Amino acid sequence: MEDTRIAILAGSASARLGSAVCTLLDLSPVACDARRFPDGELYVELAQSVRGTDLFLIQATSPPVDQHLIELLMLADACRRAGADRLTGIIPYFGYARQDRRAGRCSLGARVAADVIASAGFDRLVLIDAHTPAIEGFFAVPIEHLTAAPLLAHAVATSLPAPSVVVAPDLGAVKLAREYARLLHMPMAVVHKTRLDGEAVEAKAVMGDVAGRSPLVIDDMLSTGSTIEAAVATLRAAGAIDPVTVAVTHALLVGPATDLLPKLGLARIVASDSVERDGAANLPITTESLAPLVAATIRHLHRDESLSETRYPA
Amino acid sequence: MEDTRIAILAGSASARLGSAVCTLLDLSPVACDARRFPDGELYVELAQSVRGTDLFLIQATSPPVDQHLIELLMLADACRRAGADRLTGIIPYFGYARQDRRAGRCSLGARVAADVIASAGFDRLVLIDAHTPAIEGFFAVPIEHLTAAPLLAHAVATSLPAPSVVVAPDLGAVKLAREYARLLHMPMAVVHKTRLDGEAVEAKAVMGDVAGRSPLVIDDMLSTGSTIEAAVATLRAAGAIDPVTVAVTHALLVGPATDLLPKLGLARIVASDSVERDGAANLPITTESLAPLVAATIRHLHRDESLSETRYPA
Amino acid sequence: MEDTRIAILAGSASARLGSAVCTLLDLSPVACDARRFPDGELYVELAQSVRGTDLFLIQATSPPVDQHLIELLMLADACRRAGADRLTGIIPYFGYARQDRRAGRCSLGARVAADVIASAGFDRLVLIDAHTPAIEGFFAVPIEHLTAAPLLAHAVATSLPAPSVVVAPDLGAVKLAREYARLLHMPMAVVHKTRLDGEAVEAKAVMGDVAGRSPLVIDDMLSTGSTIEAAVATLRAAGAIDPVTVAVTHALLVGPATDLLPKLGLARIVASDSVERDGAANLPITTESLAPLVAATIRHLHRDESLSETRYPA
Amino acid sequence: MEDTRIAILAGSASARLGSAVCTLLDLSPVACDARRFPDGELYVELAQSVRGTDLFLIQATSPPVDQHLIELLMLADACRRAGADRLTGIIPYFGYARQDRRAGRCSLGARVAADVIASAGFDRLVLIDAHTPAIEGFFAVPIEHLTAAPLLAHAVATSLPAPSVVVAPDLGAVKLAREYARLLHMPMAVVHKTRLDGEAVEAKAVMGDVAGRSPLVIDDMLSTGSTIEAAVATLRAAGAIDPVTVAVTHALLVGPATDLLPKLGLARIVASDSVERDGAANLPITTESLAPLVAATIRHLHRDESLSETRYPA
Amino acid sequence: MEDTRIAILAGSASARLGSAVCTLLDLSPVACDARRFPDGELYVELAQSVRGTDLFLIQATSPPVDQHLIELLMLADACRRAGADRLTGIIPYFGYARQDRRAGRCSLGARVAADVIASAGFDRLVLIDAHTPAIEGFFAVPIEHLTAAPLLAHAVATSLPAPSVVVAPDLGAVKLAREYARLLHMPMAVVHKTRLDGEAVEAKAVMGDVAGRSPLVIDDMLSTGSTIEAAVATLRAAGAIDPVTVAVTHALLVGPATDLLPKLGLARIVASDSVERDGAANLPITTESLAPLVAATIRHLHRDESLSETRYPA
Amino acid sequence: MEDTRIAILAGSASARLGSAVCTLLDLSPVACDARRFPDGELYVELAQSVRGTDLFLIQATSPPVDQHLIELLMLADACRRAGADRLTGIIPYFGYARQDRRAGRCSLGARVAADVIASAGFDRLVLIDAHTPAIEGFFAVPIEHLTAAPLLAHAVATSLPAPSVVVAPDLGAVKLAREYARLLHMPMAVVHKTRLDGEAVEAKAVMGDVAGRSPLVIDDMLSTGSTIEAAVATLRAAGAIDPVTVAVTHALLVGPATDLLPKLGLARIVASDSVERDGAANLPITTESLAPLVAATIRHLHRDESLSETRYPA
Repeated sequence: MEDTRIAILAGSASARLGSAVCTLLDLSPVACDARRFPDGELYVELAQSVRGTDLFLIQATSPPVDQHLIELLMLADACRRAGADRLTGIIPYFGYARQDRRAGRCSLGARVAADVIASAGFDRLVLIDAHTPAIEGFFAVPIEHLTAAPLLAHAVATSLPAPSVVVAPDLGAVKLAREYARLLHMPMAVVHKTRLDGEAVEAKAVMGDVAGRSPLVIDDMLSTGSTIEAAVATLRAAGAIDPVTVAVTHALLVGPATDLLPKLGLARIVASDSVERDGAANLPITTESLAPLVAATIRHLHRDESLSETRYPA
Repeated sequence: MEDTRIAILAGSASARLGSAVCTLLDLSPVACDARRFPDGELYVELAQSVRGTDLFLIQATSPPVDQHLIELLMLADACRRAGADRLTGIIPYFGYARQDRRAGRCSLGARVAADVIASAGFDRLVLIDAHTPAIEGFFAVPIEHLTAAPLLAHAVATSLPAPSVVVAPDLGAVKLAREYARLLHMPMAVVHKTRLDGEAVEAKAVMGDVAGRSPLVIDDMLSTGSTIEAAVATLRAAGAIDPVTVAVTHALLVGPATDLLPKLGLARIVASDSVERDGAANLPITTESLAPLVAATIRHLHRDESLSETRYPA
Repeated sequence: MEDTRIAILAGSASARLGSAVCTLLDLSPVACDARRFPDGELYVELAQSVRGTDLFLIQATSPPVDQHLIELLMLADACRRAGADRLTGIIPYFGYARQDRRAGRCSLGARVAADVIASAGFDRLVLIDAHTPAIEGFFAVPIEHLTAAPLLAHAVATSLPAPSVVVAPDLGAVKLAREYARLLHMPMAVVHKTRLDGEAVEAKAVMGDVAGRSPLVIDDMLSTGSTIEAAVATLRAAGAIDPVTVAVTHALLVGPATDLLPKLGLARIVASDSVERDGAANLPITTESLAPLVAATIRHLHRDESLSETRYPA
Repeated sequence: MEDTRIAILAGSASARLGSAVCTLLDLSPVACDARRFPDGELYVELAQSVRGTDLFLIQATSPPVDQHLIELLMLADACRRAGADRLTGIIPYFGYARQDRRAGRCSLGARVAADVIASAGFDRLVLIDAHTPAIEGFFAVPIEHLTAAPLLAHAVATSLPAPSVVVAPDLGAVKLAREYARLLHMPMAVVHKTRLDGEAVEAKAVMGDVAGRSPLVIDDMLSTGSTIEAAVATLRAAGAIDPVTVAVTHALLVGPATDLLPKLGLARIVASDSVERDGAANLPITTESLAPLVAATIRHLHRDESLSETRYPA
Repeated sequence: MEDTRIAILAGSASARLGSAVCTLLDLSPVACDARRFPDGELYVELAQSVRGTDLFLIQATSPPVDQHLIELLMLADACRRAGADRLTGIIPYFGYARQDRRAGRCSLGARVAADVIASAGFDRLVLIDAHTPAIEGFFAVPIEHLTAAPLLAHAVATSLPAPSVVVAPDLGAVKLAREYARLLHMPMAVVHKTRLDGEAVEAKAVMGDVAGRSPLVIDDMLSTGSTIEAAVATLRAAGAIDPVTVAVTHALLVGPATDLLPKLGLARIVASDSVERDGAANLPITTESLAPLVAATIRHLHRDESLSETRYPA
Repeated sequence: MEDTRIAILAGSASARLGSAVCTLLDLSPVACDARRFPDGELYVELAQSVRGTDLFLIQATSPPVDQHLIELLMLADACRRAGADRLTGIIPYFGYARQDRRAGRCSLGARVAADVIASAGFDRLVLIDAHTPAIEGFFAVPIEHLTAAPLLAHAVATSLPAPSVVVAPDLGAVKLAREYARLLHMPMAVVHKTRLDGEAVEAKAVMGDVAGRSPLVIDDMLSTGSTIEAAVATLRAAGAIDPVTVAVTHALLVGPATDLLPKLGLARIVASDSVERDGAANLPITTESLAPLVAATIRHLHRDESLSETRYPA
């Protein structure tokens, strides 16, 4: 597509990331008027022509998730109708991904979100550490599924004391934990729920050796902090020692998170900027930007270059 | 479908209407657990089996529109996956309907909303006074497009002094005004924007005879009240007299509406309960329930009876 | 798409317009053998290669509407199978557009026509003053909805005496009337049906001030002339004076039109060439060609240039 | 579907056949108002409710093919939107079937027709001796492909003198000829085009022994008569003797047919009533009605009975 | 659907299971002629009518996976075209499920398989312990995802000595291991690959306490046995004691499995009959039939009863 | 597409043909790792980037047909997800094509195969002498249907003694026979089944004059040889003389073919290389490569040149 003009449009959920990506690519984002009417309906209008462009639309479906999801659709629709030649959606954080299976008469939320996004007519989507790796199969269009693990592993590598251990705070994170363990040449452990006695309530247990080790608790997302809270308590009970470090791709920090996390005695939280938020001054959080990863992906896709190095770094 | 079991499920935007419909049909609504996680993601789970039912899902896409739209999808998905035999969506108020054409590089919001709803797999939809009558064509599935005009016309009929005039507050409402004029045997007029002189700004003008007449201003929706405000001022300047009555199907009353409307000296506002809201104690508003209309429609559809009488009352 | 070859193919309903567009663009139309077998089946075969072209297919679905509609499909199918790279349909007149809502157990004709056209696999469609502006939402593919109003307003501007008034001959034409009023800096009025007394039959009435004014009756289409006939009678009864001018985008002139219209004492009828017809020598009709508008649209689309100026002229 | 109400609707191309089928099933056809506006647009409206019915729509796409095709769509759309529970299309003659392959930059007319029909949302289609048996694969919905060969073979059986021969008038009819030969225990021959010498023009030749035999020329359709004319001349040159009989499922008799056929000295033409036409008094044509076959098919489908006996009679 | 006739059809991959299910339901399976031509093409023909039935088609896509997959399609196509009213596919083992994400320029095999199956037009699918729980989202149609874990856990419960431990032989099995641990009130452990030193090769490690415990190694499938082999060696090295028990839903036993497994000193292998195979006389394998689970599911679906008890047993 | 990079990928069924095509086009085929796991599941991974390429995927669905069909899908999926800009499938032999109509409750195998292939997302397909010419209509995407008849006719032309006759061995091959007859300026005949007497069994008969002529038996495919065997016997009984030559596009030679054919005393069998096989040393078979035809087609498609000369050679 190198003979077409490249264009980058960022929605309100990813305005800063979009801006950083544009700076790296030496481009101006597509000017766009997006506003809410008094009844809450969103109106979007592109302020410049995108006809014939190779358009990349960046928008996380982070909280408020429904609004950001509909905004993603409205922007995509505007781009498609305005004649974008190719439309690639870049969704740094994919909301509703945890509803990837049903355990009763519930909805399959991740598929609903996928279908909604698909209805907008993207040619390709780029996701980053979606909760379900199998999310790729929820879409008919090709998915480029990137990971922030190397970025975050590199960021924490020097500050981890020896001996350390990578810890998955629940069973859903074991594969990501292995990825960190592989990158950092560290052992791993996993915190999980157990209920050995039929009558007793569930308790947390640790699989793997954490005694005397300093844990790096990793996860794809940090939401209310309750999973981390339980994991840290379990780890300490099992003999893990300070400092305790946390690395997550998506730092949502919703609900009680900003109250709860400061009480945990965490040495450091490292997260990407997939979810944009203000404040959190009371947290020892450092943010690693996804902008270089996203910019490189856009550059490769636009130039029809292989993504292998970007998607699967050594 | 009379050999199947009927089931009615109401979303959070239409809980009261759904309850009233169930009372009229002597049914209990399907019990459903719908809640938001701390990150704002919606989770819905039906508390009882709907397998093999003829299911009617009632949910307006009223403000907050994006949340109500996604809730509609999630509920529909849960019903479909749980084995509902036929799924009819009843959308008393259809948000984003005003974005039914593009005038620049904007999105076609009504089609985006339609596509999103279509992705949920409804077999049939029931709409009530959607902003665009042609909305029927935005969907592949059959639409039953009902109108509240007879209900509201009947409600205001006795309180209108002679001589009165039905007034469309803008050009978009002329066909609905004609419907009221036909039902009430009254003349009609229309307020519209004009700009006779190239340099001058736009002004409002009235087509039709309103001097010495008491206006019944009608519209499909009452949002911030600004359209009504401008219409009333123009009508008074053109000689219309008190009382001024307003009849609208959808009373959103958002933004400045509750401040602005009390200042207009309206004698009465009549609206349906398509949009559920609290308060508005300072407004002379009376509400006519759509429950009988919706209940009759459900009964006819379930029994495979003709809707003609319901859809096109004399 | 400027790196691809442009190709223009005109169907039998738009042969003259297609030829005029080609002249403006300095191109030869794609040679095509389209003939009817003795049983009435259409056979089309392109006489030259269109592989890899940016192909624009021009065909109105004017009367005989079913034949022209099927011809549009057959030509599109031939182009697509022969390897056209991009296929844009230009439909100067869109038949069946008035069947845009149902009022009984009828078909939704406009959607049927839209689905039929969609089945041919166009990438984009260009319409001109379709009866329903919301027709855009009937299609999944992007629509460029052009208007001939500026062209026709310009054509009548100098011949209208002062004072004049733009008149919509029925409620369906009010928005188009406002557009003319805006372009010509004139007031507007609307003729509409009324039935003030429950027992009486319907009568025509005028909203707006027409006494002593010379009317410019506008509409999207002029079919049998009966709407114009009723409007002119009503206007004269309300005091409107000669000359009476008519401006319509689509002059179908079917059925009794050529008998009826000469009796109305019209000073002038201005129409576009969206519908091709012979004769009408007994009518004071002048035709403004859409060729420059269509040619400019093709040029912009092919060069990936913005259509804003073309679609929404000041 | 026996617990649902059966309903039969016949379009204008199959009014008589529909009426005969209804008589056999002791049903009244669905009343329907179908008319053309002065501009030729079709308007259809069902005069009675079909909600919840098992609806069978009978409409040939015989000449005028485009109008009959669009009427089929409009009727189907009206039925679907009016709530028919199941919609089966019965197409006694399928127009455009001969365009079943491309030999240049032409359209694939049979697929275009199939796609157009598919867009109307049928659940199942019933065809009778479509030109291409493989037409079944052009549709995603299930096809019941019936044949009139046993009906017509039975009709001619007693009037054929010995020795007779079944003749395919071109290569496309050989499989149908074998079917007749099998049913009538007769030998077969085929007339085909040949060009033995590179420079010479094409000539007709006969494969198979026809000398001293009385031919039964069979075909799926009889259009202008030119194929029959050439076959009869070739057969006589090869020694075939009178009487010459013709059996065809679809007697279109268009163009020069009614002039040309009387000159051929045919003893008898037997055809089905798949195509409705007036007159042809100067032809020795007898018509066998498809009504019993169609009525039996409807009855079996409605009762969920096997069609094997109907589709593949011994 | 209780007013329709139920029908059960089993493909060649699930003939015994289908037969057992039919016995439990007191039904005869649909007779079907399915054979391979000398060129390997499959031909299927139903020997009795299925028109109007509620049809359940049972076919695992076990090895030879491609043939079984195509057979599933062919059977489904035959059923659909022959008029089955509702078509439910029951796939006891879902092949290609492990290709649920891409790690390079490979295909997304699980989605390819899902798309292929979807093209056959099922109304609903029933899967059993598919490798990816998120497989539900790969399909648009509703999925009932059953598990054999309670069945297998019950089968091994009495033969496990104390103390025992449930072991996931790799990270992909941890959630299934937790399910077994929950059902059996046992602790759990997981074997995983590790590479602590950058230069060193990968080694297996155990997370969780297995010393002095008798392991129950569980997995969704047992293919070549190499995963079990490595796990058992690692467990023994970590102090686990005999007896070693294995429980898997799908016992494929391909390649070196029947050579390798006897050498491992396993006390017992418990598996379901999702994959049909002959022999394995040299293995201590016992088979628990899925027939009761499948029969109950069919009975509930046919009667429109809730599946909750079946899908999510306590 | 000449501004994009061309890429050619050959599946295991067409490795030699792909290699020959690449040689003619002076290209290297895309390196690809395609292997079967021990359980028979196919895994494919492209070893080099195809992003932005104009990709041609060559794979016959020859025996083992199901594996080759799934491989075609897997390769296509890998190409599409890896970013191929345009994906053209070249299927030298299309399996399941004979199941192009149903004669009972069987599946419509050719449509099943077509749907499966369509699910892989090709932009265009190239077929060669598919059994059903109407196969084009089974697909929504454009089909280029090539023929090997000129190639094979040219190959046999000089070795045929005078007088010769082109023979179709059954009715399905008559149109192909006419094509050979036209190319070689020879008469034609056809062998067919007949059953003149109701009680007697079927017998073979010849239409056309073969006595004293040397037959060229042609067909689209040579499978087990039984059709040829019966034809040769019938021809000899009817007086045909040696040498007997056979020309077929697709030489499958399965089942008893290599035993049966040597006994027929055939002078020569000429076939294309659409189906790759080893051996057949005991047969007088010569192979004409399709590589020049395929290479020319690829070159033309890539350069957006007309295919007319290639598809319809004089």
